[in-house]
Amino acid sequence: MHFSSWLSQLCKSLSRPIGRTTQPIWVSLSRNLVLRSQRKIPEFSSFVARTNTCGELRPSHLGQEVTLCGWIQYRRQNVFLVLRDCHGLVQVIIPQDESAASVKKILCEAPLESVVQISGTVISRPPGQENPKMPTGAIEIKVKTAELLNSSKKLPFEIKDFVKKTEALRLQYRYLDLRSAQMQYNLRLRSQMVMKMREYLCNLHGFVDVETPTLFKRTPGGAKEFLVPSREPGKFYSLPQSPQQFKQLLMIGGLDRYFQVARCYRDEGSRPDRQPEFTQIDIEMSFVDQTGIRNLIEGLLQYSWPSDKDPVVIPFPSMTFAEALASYGTDKPDTRFGMKITDVSEVFRNTESEFLQDALSKPQGTIKAICVQEGAKHLKRKEIESIRKCATDHFNQEVLPIFLKANSNWNSRAARLLVEEQRLELTRIMEAQEDDVVFLTAGEHGKTCSLLGKLRLECADLLEGRGVVLRDPTRFSFLWVVDFPLFLPKEDNPSELESAHHPFTAPHPSDRHLLYTAPEKVRSQHYDLVLNGNEIGGGSIRIHDAELQRYILSTLLKEDVTLLSHLLQALDYGAPPHGGIALGLDRLMCLVTGASSIRDVIAFPKSFRGHDLMSNAPDSVPAEELKPYHIQVSWPTDSEAEKSSLNHSYHPES
Amino acid sequence: MHFSSWLSQLCKSLSRPIGRTTQPIWVSLSRNLVLRSQRKIPEFSSFVARTNTCGELRPSHLGQEVTLCGWIQYRRQNVFLVLRDCHGLVQVIIPQDESAASVKKILCEAPLESVVQISGTVISRPPGQENPKMPTGAIEIKVKTAELLNSSKKLPFEIKDFVKKTEALRLQYRYLDLRSAQMQYNLRLRSQMVMKMREYLCNLHGFVDVETPTLFKRTPGGAKEFLVPSREPGKFYSLPQSPQQFKQLLMIGGLDRYFQVARCYRDEGSRPDRQPEFTQIDIEMSFVDQTGIRNLIEGLLQYSWPSDKDPVVIPFPSMTFAEALASYGTDKPDTRFGMKITDVSEVFRNTESEFLQDALSKPQGTIKAICVQEGAKHLKRKEIESIRKCATDHFNQEVLPIFLKANSNWNSRAARLLVEEQRLELTRIMEAQEDDVVFLTAGEHGKTCSLLGKLRLECADLLEGRGVVLRDPTRFSFLWVVDFPLFLPKEDNPSELESAHHPFTAPHPSDRHLLYTAPEKVRSQHYDLVLNGNEIGGGSIRIHDAELQRYILSTLLKEDVTLLSHLLQALDYGAPPHGGIALGLDRLMCLVTGASSIRDVIAFPKSFRGHDLMSNAPDSVPAEELKPYHIQVSWPTDSEAEKSSLNHSYHPES
Repeated sequence: MHFSSWLSQLCKSLSRPIGRTTQPIWVSLSRNLVLRSQRKIPEFSSFVARTNTCGELRPSHLGQEVTLCGWIQYRRQNVFLVLRDCHGLVQVIIPQDESAASVKKILCEAPLESVVQISGTVISRPPGQENPKMPTGAIEIKVKTAELLNSSKKLPFEIKDFVKKTEALRLQYRYLDLRSAQMQYNLRLRSQMVMKMREYLCNLHGFVDVETPTLFKRTPGGAKEFLVPSREPGKFYSLPQSPQQFKQLLMIGGLDRYFQVARCYRDEGSRPDRQPEFTQIDIEMSFVDQTGIRNLIEGLLQYSWPSDKDPVVIPFPSMTFAEALASYGTDKPDTRFGMKITDVSEVFRNTESEFLQDALSKPQGTIKAICVQEGAKHLKRKEIESIRKCATDHFNQEVLPIFLKANSNWNSRAARLLVEEQRLELTRIMEAQEDDVVFLTAGEHGKTCSLLGKLRLECADLLEGRGVVLRDPTRFSFLWVVDFPLFLPKEDNPSELESAHHPFTAPHPSDRHLLYTAPEKVRSQHYDLVLNGNEIGGGSIRIHDAELQRYILSTLLKEDVTLLSHLLQALDYGAPPHGGIALGLDRLMCLVTGASSIRDVIAFPKSFRGHDLMSNAPDSVPAEELKPYHIQVSWPTDSEAEKSSLNHSYHPES
Repeated sequence: MHFSSWLSQLCKSLSRPIGRTTQPIWVSLSRNLVLRSQRKIPEFSSFVARTNTCGELRPSHLGQEVTLCGWIQYRRQNVFLVLRDCHGLVQVIIPQDESAASVKKILCEAPLESVVQISGTVISRPPGQENPKMPTGAIEIKVKTAELLNSSKKLPFEIKDFVKKTEALRLQYRYLDLRSAQMQYNLRLRSQMVMKMREYLCNLHGFVDVETPTLFKRTPGGAKEFLVPSREPGKFYSLPQSPQQFKQLLMIGGLDRYFQVARCYRDEGSRPDRQPEFTQIDIEMSFVDQTGIRNLIEGLLQYSWPSDKDPVVIPFPSMTFAEALASYGTDKPDTRFGMKITDVSEVFRNTESEFLQDALSKPQGTIKAICVQEGAKHLKRKEIESIRKCATDHFNQEVLPIFLKANSNWNSRAARLLVEEQRLELTRIMEAQEDDVVFLTAGEHGKTCSLLGKLRLECADLLEGRGVVLRDPTRFSFLWVVDFPLFLPKEDNPSELESAHHPFTAPHPSDRHLLYTAPEKVRSQHYDLVLNGNEIGGGSIRIHDAELQRYILSTLLKEDVTLLSHLLQALDYGAPPHGGIALGLDRLMCLVTGASSIRDVIAFPKSFRGHDLMSNAPDSVPAEELKPYHIQVSWPTDSEAEKSSLNHSYHPES
């Protein structure tokens, strides 16, 4: 490949949207750098051997003597090479004259990805050889001296985004994968965004950054907590799932406004796109209500939002849990597009269909529908059949597709059930047009909503597969979901209650009286923050009344309160009203960068089986190292081991 | 107690130096607040019910209608009360007229430490009733409305610094202890100082804040690492003692400048003033040398230093390890005072004392001394005897005290060994004056230095007990210690070597050739940062050459390199030269705040036996919760348990 065409391909790949990011990455890194370097802040070359970074050089540097340190990314015909550092690429001219033979030798013999330090002059590229797609494409470096800092063996894969590699390989050689433009961008943006959040919280609003322990004790129902054996026989620390108790205790301790970028731990075994350790922006305030927390978070996200994205518009819209379920079939609606669930029970109230009449007569019985615009044009028969099959298989529900044609010439079994008037009414309610497809289902409210919510997302996937843009990747659609139920029936014993979120959530003030009569009807002061259909945060106003907290824990939830006696006691001693929230930083960064997995915004993630593929953690430990902790391994019997290995085989490593 | 005298006592206690802090704490909190509140940044009352904080109110607020939320700290004769929030105290006038009966009832009946919200007007105190020692002492609040937000039970101790309580009680009720002015000051200052460090690193110098995993695998010799059982039988994660490997891998990954406020874990059993989890400011840079790291850290501390202390003067002085040992008998000299160790071998070279001659004739044999100024005046005979006994007991060394009196009329056994000339020479070398005491000892260089280094600190304690100020608590004396040995003989097998710090430390360039001939003589590129005699940081330039790293690990240290194969492999693929440092944040904050223990700068510390006295962690775990982790408890036999409980009884809880 010719050098110019290689460079052009490289630049194209760097400018190509990666994941859902539409910004060329080195360009974005580089632009930031140059904007800032006019003020020389930050100083990326303070304290070190180089005078400049490779990526920052521009025509304004012409004639300057510079010293650069970086990796040899590419070399062509022993005349040019491309040097890469953390901020980008620059073209270097290898000297050809006799007097510079030693410099030439170093630069020509060093294997690719070797580390070199060069000094030279920034010069213009010859006319016609500029590369406008490369941020440093107007200049090149005429080298005077060169030093090989470290030679490299041949890499297991090339550091170029257009060279595809499996994720397992990337994780095994994570230190090489981190050299990619995409990972550099993701990690730097994460750092910058968290820094802006800190400025907002600490410097603008007087929050105190407090570190809370991660060696703690187990919490009631904390079955997903990692254990840490102590040197006392039979005594274990637990790694907490969140600093929930500590942040409440800090409010009781008068800290007033707390935040922490908190490491949390959750042992969920093998779940895709979850990590055993994760990070949340953890916040708690005294004397605050829901509105206060929501204003705070809207300001926080607006302030910290990356400058290369569209600004965040506030306030965020808000929706009750009931409304989210009814309109989107989920508590985390993707509001970037419509296709809302519509209750069409009234249309069918007087239908002769026994099936529909039967559905309507049951408690919470409804008929609901979604309308897929131009569905008849985009969806194939096979896909519609697969949608119907999915509904039967997973929800035990029948879904009827109704094709709208001109003059309501309907092509559906359902059509036969309707008189002309009903047809017109359905079309009107669904705002349906020719070529749309309506999916209809009948049954219990919650179940039909969940089903249609799922179909809505599936149809969106299918339409986008046909090139219809429903979920604009550059759009960020925030939504508050509020008024969740305080309790849910226990899955394994529906006659008992469990907390919908956690037992410290305060009941909705209007429903407090129901706690003693119909607790299952009580709404909570919990709120979730949703972004593009993903829950990125949740929080609540907490219970600050010791008696109420005891009543909920002991009487309603039947929890063992001894594990929480310190918190209950603390509420007795002048606990202020307080509330807070936690934002899932990994998920948020994943959405902001457009990464396809949270593993792409974490420097050293675990595979979804919880393995570090680079270092091979977790690892065996010699028996004598277990002794001080008074534990021993219970090796599974052969049959158990076999079962477990079978289970694992369902989850091949990433 | 009369109200005015109570207030005056309260203010005195708030203005009193606590630990080594000389700043009145609420005053300092308050002053910061007011300076900033002129710009209204940070806004401490954004998003919440109050309009102002109690502590910020000044005559400039006169006439303003304010809403305050806080704790009832004190009440007098149902006329005044003092309301406290996170920023200080304010005096509130309880209305006495009939029309405000309900407000009066609330404010008079609420128990102390109850939480109330009040609204009212800021008014001047009547002439003569101002309290100049109280930051809000010129004003008071005329209340109009009041609401009881939460009532408090009687506290186990009062929230007043002059009420002394045991540390065990403070830790048990940590959430109450946090309300004290001292803990509020410590935690807020910690947050502010770390924020400034982040600004310096991120915003001024382009560092990237990268979070590294805490669920990792064990490292060679990591006997102090906590274990975390995984769901795979016999496989464990380890909680790392530092992100050392990750930060080096980040440099290999091209991150260029990394920092993290990193949680680290070390299981040291019961050691006073250590915590099982602690925090370090963790830093790593590519293409840097020792000077670069030192300049960076000096700038960092200067930038982040609290404004209520004397500014940090840079550059910090530097001293070799050999020099530190020879002059101060330790690798972490407290350079706030002299009393340096002096080699006086030459004075005694021709002495007739067989004992001294014998000591001088041995390898590394020396005679050394320290001079305690005015020791004869301040030290009691009993104390000198106890010093001598300590030397015999712990160092198996004889120490001779020499009292200088006018005309060298020496009162010591040693004096008898010296001729007049030698006496004068000793006096000259030691710069000794009348009433000074010289402590003299003879033996091997390292041993005599260590002994005298210990005596030096003991004498300083004794002199300070007599009112002599040697170590000014407002002075911060930083020092770099450099040129440590790379290896030390193994304690249990002195014929083998172990790393003096860790095996990734680069050898001193001048000594590299000795690696293959006399490795025990090789100095390293390790550096320690010392503050007032405490090690607050350490780091090194790292090995970036894979072959050298393998040679040191396998050949010299005889380590099992399979546990580090990922790091060794990474060095093969173009590792840049790099180095870094870690600052111990808890220790640093302890010194800055003048706290008597690191537990006073940590929100929820463990007792020195690793217990959380508030929640009672670590705790028992039901056997079925151990099952998923394939472990069981090995209960000690009765005799082992007895031994262990005996051991514990030597360490009563805090």
